[in-house]
Formats: sequence, structure tokens, C-alpha cells
Amino acid sequence: MPHPSKRSEVEPFRAMDVLARANALEASGRHILHMEVGQPGAAAPKPVLDAARAALDGGRLGYTEARGLPVLRDAIAGYYRDSFGAEVPTERIIATTGSSAGFNLTFLAAFDPGDRIAIAAPGYPAYRNILRALGIEPVEIEVGPETRWALTPELIEAAHREAPLKGVLVASPANPTGTMMTPEALRTLIAACEDMGLWFISDEIYHGLVFAGQQETALTFSDQTIVINSFSKYYCMTGWRIGWMVVPDVLVRPIERLAQSLYISPPELSQRAAAAAFSATEELEAVKAVYARNRALLVERMPALGFDEMLPVDGAFYLYASVRPFANDSTAFARSMLEEAGIAATPGADFDPFQGTRFIRFSFAGTHEDMREAMDRLGDWLPRQG
Amino acid sequence: MPHPSKRSEVEPFRAMDVLARANALEASGRHILHMEVGQPGAAAPKPVLDAARAALDGGRLGYTEARGLPVLRDAIAGYYRDSFGAEVPTERIIATTGSSAGFNLTFLAAFDPGDRIAIAAPGYPAYRNILRALGIEPVEIEVGPETRWALTPELIEAAHREAPLKGVLVASPANPTGTMMTPEALRTLIAACEDMGLWFISDEIYHGLVFAGQQETALTFSDQTIVINSFSKYYCMTGWRIGWMVVPDVLVRPIERLAQSLYISPPELSQRAAAAAFSATEELEAVKAVYARNRALLVERMPALGFDEMLPVDGAFYLYASVRPFANDSTAFARSMLEEAGIAATPGADFDPFQGTRFIRFSFAGTHEDMREAMDRLGDWLPRQG
Repeated sequence: MPHPSKRSEVEPFRAMDVLARANALEASGRHILHMEVGQPGAAAPKPVLDAARAALDGGRLGYTEARGLPVLRDAIAGYYRDSFGAEVPTERIIATTGSSAGFNLTFLAAFDPGDRIAIAAPGYPAYRNILRALGIEPVEIEVGPETRWALTPELIEAAHREAPLKGVLVASPANPTGTMMTPEALRTLIAACEDMGLWFISDEIYHGLVFAGQQETALTFSDQTIVINSFSKYYCMTGWRIGWMVVPDVLVRPIERLAQSLYISPPELSQRAAAAAFSATEELEAVKAVYARNRALLVERMPALGFDEMLPVDGAFYLYASVRPFANDSTAFARSMLEEAGIAATPGADFDPFQGTRFIRFSFAGTHEDMREAMDRLGDWLPRQG
Repeated sequence: MPHPSKRSEVEPFRAMDVLARANALEASGRHILHMEVGQPGAAAPKPVLDAARAALDGGRLGYTEARGLPVLRDAIAGYYRDSFGAEVPTERIIATTGSSAGFNLTFLAAFDPGDRIAIAAPGYPAYRNILRALGIEPVEIEVGPETRWALTPELIEAAHREAPLKGVLVASPANPTGTMMTPEALRTLIAACEDMGLWFISDEIYHGLVFAGQQETALTFSDQTIVINSFSKYYCMTGWRIGWMVVPDVLVRPIERLAQSLYISPPELSQRAAAAAFSATEELEAVKAVYARNRALLVERMPALGFDEMLPVDGAFYLYASVRPFANDSTAFARSMLEEAGIAATPGADFDPFQGTRFIRFSFAGTHEDMREAMDRLGDWLPRQG
């Protein structure tokens, strides 16, 4: 009998394993507080649900063009006009089956096997897992407080000297750190990458979820960057699997060709529903206000519970903290916390091969009641650790 | 500025390009008859739509386990029990974002770069495009009437002697040929592949759409085969992007790990809706009866229009015919037919590097009225060709 491939030996996405275990515990009757997966507790906003209902009533949901429906791509162009005063040609906008498809298509269209791509550690684990599955070498660069956990021109230049890079991928706000780059830091990094002849990929999935600092799209600084975004986070549409990318002209047709065979098209219902998401600002800002309350609660309560090292929470909905006051290994810590306290969170090994075993990521995108309950349960459970 | 990757130079999926052009013509006011893309004209059946509406009313649609919701995977196990009397453990069933994700995950989990996979030509173009994008070599074996357009142990053994294969992929009913393998031919081929130590992949997406002959799942003959299926065709859910696979135990965890990073999970709404699809048999059989009428119409009318070489239409909803009575090149023929007669169909170059320029694929999954209209338009237009 044949064997699984070598390239299938990617790391698991531990957050998804924790989710599967948490769901199993729930199915057995336990009450679990979900802080493991980066997804809003709120349902999609009303205009989205209304558009989805209309699409269900409107006849067959079929394949669309591989790049997505014009109505959605036009709405996305409108978003850049309204939010950033930027004119982005609809031709360069491609709807995707979540940002997951955006990464897969970008990596396939821009990179060949053996190419080296710089990413920050800590960072989103799917970057490195998808890159490895596709034969691309993720060059994980350790970042810390001295650069506010962001890549810099100096770090990139150093890695490029070691062995030539082919691209750089950044996220701001970032997962799991919750930290942001200033517009100036982003501008400088893009310019440096273009000078070096590297692809620059900007993961902007946490745009809209900013509590301190100013967000800027990479498109403001260059039309040669690859921007990846999604309706999953700010727009509360995780399970709909719908996102988008904005790509340089030269990548439009390669990505379209790949998408035709690899995805055919994003789900039509999700496309029609997402086109209505930009008109739901009031409702979405109310959801964000809950995150702001949750953030304030965690930032106040967790130090009092004994967490002595926490990253600043500029944006996104994550708090990334060291477990050292209680345990040596955050994977074992997360397992016990789920089984014993019914709190699901994601161990840092998902995000960072260097310091990850020391950290844990709490998502605070749930309800405020759940966050309070989580802090109370931690107050009971933590004193019995360490 | 950097360049697109070498591996992005895959062929376009021409059916999708034709679809995009057909949609553009429609947007400009033309009435287009869609016979280009393999998708039912009918909407999803009522139980599916009801389940989707209930899911929209039921709160947040979120990430599910990467393998899919237990309710859907249990329903799929029930399908094998009811349709084939086969006990398939839910543990080996993985819900996917359409069969597209099933192929991508299978190819990544079972094959490494440089591996050789045998496929039939003519065949579904995404096989070869995805394989090439992933660095796998598609070994396209020309098939014809002498094997009813199917791969055989002899053909596989000959290709394996030339240079070792790592796997074999078949579809029955097949796209674009519409032909089927007998259960005995399938059994013999699976046994031969297992003797040679090859992965056997059975694309069963056209199951349920059989007009002549008997369908059988590869699972009946072996629990070591990889079966890929979807709700797109018989269940009329193309735009929902939901399918499934059944894999050997040894591939479950590798595929789950890859799916966690590459897809996170299939769309939740589609999963909940698809779980209701197996209870819609009466409605789906009525849709299939329309295909049967369409098939009878085309099989009768097209020879009278001058098509002198057509493949037998055992299953699926395709008629694959030579355009030689009218033109030398089916790609130019398809273009003119779309622009002048308003009929969209897919040129054979999509499916077959050997004989494809001679053939064209008509999908008859639309309404009977559209098929009649298409035959009438062809009757007006064809005499002006060749």
C-alpha cells in the first residue's frame, strides 16, 4: 500500500484541533468558553442575512466567474474609495473562498518551489503550513518588542543577504500578537522590498478592528503589492468562506487561471451576501464596541490573575500572553485549561517555533458575558496551577 | 518587479473563460443558451433550501471542524448504507469545499513533486491543471472506443513500465465523454492498481446521473481507494461549493492537517444544507428526468444537424461530439457559435491534448426549452459553417 506524501507532514493548525476537542466536550454536555479560534461570536449583520435570504429565493446558485461576481468586486472597489480614498480598478480585484484561498493562489501564482518567503514569528500558522505544502521555504524571522513585533527593512535585508528572498508577507493588525505597524513603517518596508525586487504581500484581514494606532492599506503606497483581505473578521462572516485580493495587473490572469481549476468559483450565496456587508457599518461598529469592552476587561483582569507578560493589543481580537507564571509548556497548559476549566485557547506553538511554547493566544471575539465567565473560571483554576 | 511563477503557467479552464464571455454578452442584452459549464439549470431542492433558511435563522455561521460537521458526515455515511449497502465509517469521511478541494487535498496528501499520475484523455481539465500546479506529472493516456474511453489494467501497466506511476485517477460516469465503466471493469482496474502499489482515486461526482449501465462505488471493492464526490451535480448545488471524500485510514490525519491550513473548513451554511440533500430524492429524480428528455432530444437531433461522430451518453449530462463536418478547430467553432448563435459550449482542447481540437462538449443540464432552442439555433447557424 502506498504512503502519504512527504509534503503532507505539515504541522497541524492547533487552533483547529482545540476547536474539534472543544466541540466534542460540548457535545458531551460541557459548557465551553471558546477563545481558541479567531472568529466573532456575533452572527453576520442584517443586510448580509437579508441578501442571503434574497439569494436563496432568487433561483439557482451556480458557478460564477472564477474571479467572482461583478456586483461583489464593484462593492469592494467602493470600499477602497470610501475607506481610503483610493481608486482600485475592479479588474485587479479577485473574490476568493476566504483569505485561505487568497494565500494559496498568491503563493502558487508568485512563487516556485524552493523560493524563500520572509514571515514574522510569531505569525499566522497557515502561512508557513501552506508555504511548506507548496514547496516554498518560509523564512521565519523572530520579532519582538524592539520592532513592535513587526518585520523591518533591516530584518529583511539581513535575511536576503543570507540567501536571496523572493517575497515578504506581513499582517497589520497581526495575528496572534494583536500589534500594528504605523503607516510610515509599512510605507518604508514596502519601498525596501520593491528596491530588492521582492513580492510584498499585505494580509489586511484584521482591518477595521483597530483600538490603538492607525490602519493603512498597502495599496496606498504601491500598486505592485498583493493585498489579501476577507469578510471573516470585521464583517463577522467566518463560516461563509468569502474574501478578496487586490493584485498587480501582471498577476490577474495567472491567478484567474489557477482559480478556475483549483476553486472554480467562490460560493455564490456568500458572494451575494458579502456584497451587502459594506452597508452594515452601524451594526458592525456595535460588535466592535463589544470587542473594545472585552479588550478592556482582559487587559485589566489578566495581570491581576498573575499574567505578567502580555503583548499590547493594538488591533484584531487577540491577547497573546506568556504562561510562564503557571507552566513551562503552553500546549500542556492549554490542554488542562480546556479539560479542567472549560476554556479553549490556542497554544503559542501554533504561531512561533522560537518562543511559542511560552505563550498562549486568547481570542476575545466572543460575548462580554463569556469573557467575564472566562476570567472568573481562570480566577478559580489558575491558583491550582504552577 | 518580480514575475509570476513558472507553475502559474497552467492552461486556462476554457469552460470558465467561455462562461465569463457568455455572461458578458448576457449583460449586454443578448440571450445566451448555456451549454458550456457542467451545472444543473435547476435550483437546489426544497429540503436543501429549507435547511439553508433554517441555518440563516439559527445564529452565527462559523468555522466548523476542518473535516466538516458530524451531522453532514453522518448523512454521507447513511447515503452509502442506503445506496450501496456499504458501511463506511464516518471517521473516513471528510467534507470538502466542493470536489475541487477534494482533488487538491488528495494530490497534496498522496503525492510529492515529480510523482506520475495516470489520467484519461479526454478527461476533466482541472485534474491536469491542479496536478501541474502542484508539481505532479499528469500522464495523459489517450483512450477511445475500444475501451469505452476508460483506462484499463493494460494501459496502466504499459505506462507504469515506461516510468513508475504513483497513482491512477478515473471518473465514471466521465467528463467530458459521458461514458461509464462497468462494475467489473472498475473492480479489475482497482485490483491491478493495488497489485502495482498505486493510489487509486475514483471521481464519483456524476453518480446518480446514469442513463445506461450500472454505477458502482470504488468503496465496494476496496477500503484503500480514495473516493471523491460532490453535491454539485445530481444534487444541483454547484454554487454552494460542497462535496466530500472517503479516504483510507492512513490519509485521514494528513488530509485533516492540510485542510486546517488550506481551507480551515467548508462553508457552514452549505454543510448544513447539504445534510438535507439525501432526503430530496423525489425532486432530484424529476430533475434527472429532464436530463433524460434532453439527452433523447440531442441524440436524435444532432445527427440530423450533421454531427456524424458522437460518443455514447451513458451518464453525466454531456454530449461530446466532433465538429469536423463544420470546422477544423473546435475552439474557433465554439467562439463563433457563441458570438453568432448565442450558444455557449466548451471546446475539446480543454479535455484532450491529442484529439481535443476536433471535439466540442455540450452540457444538457439546462431546461428542455433551452435545449430545443439550441437545436433550432444550430439548425439555422450550422448550414452557414464549413
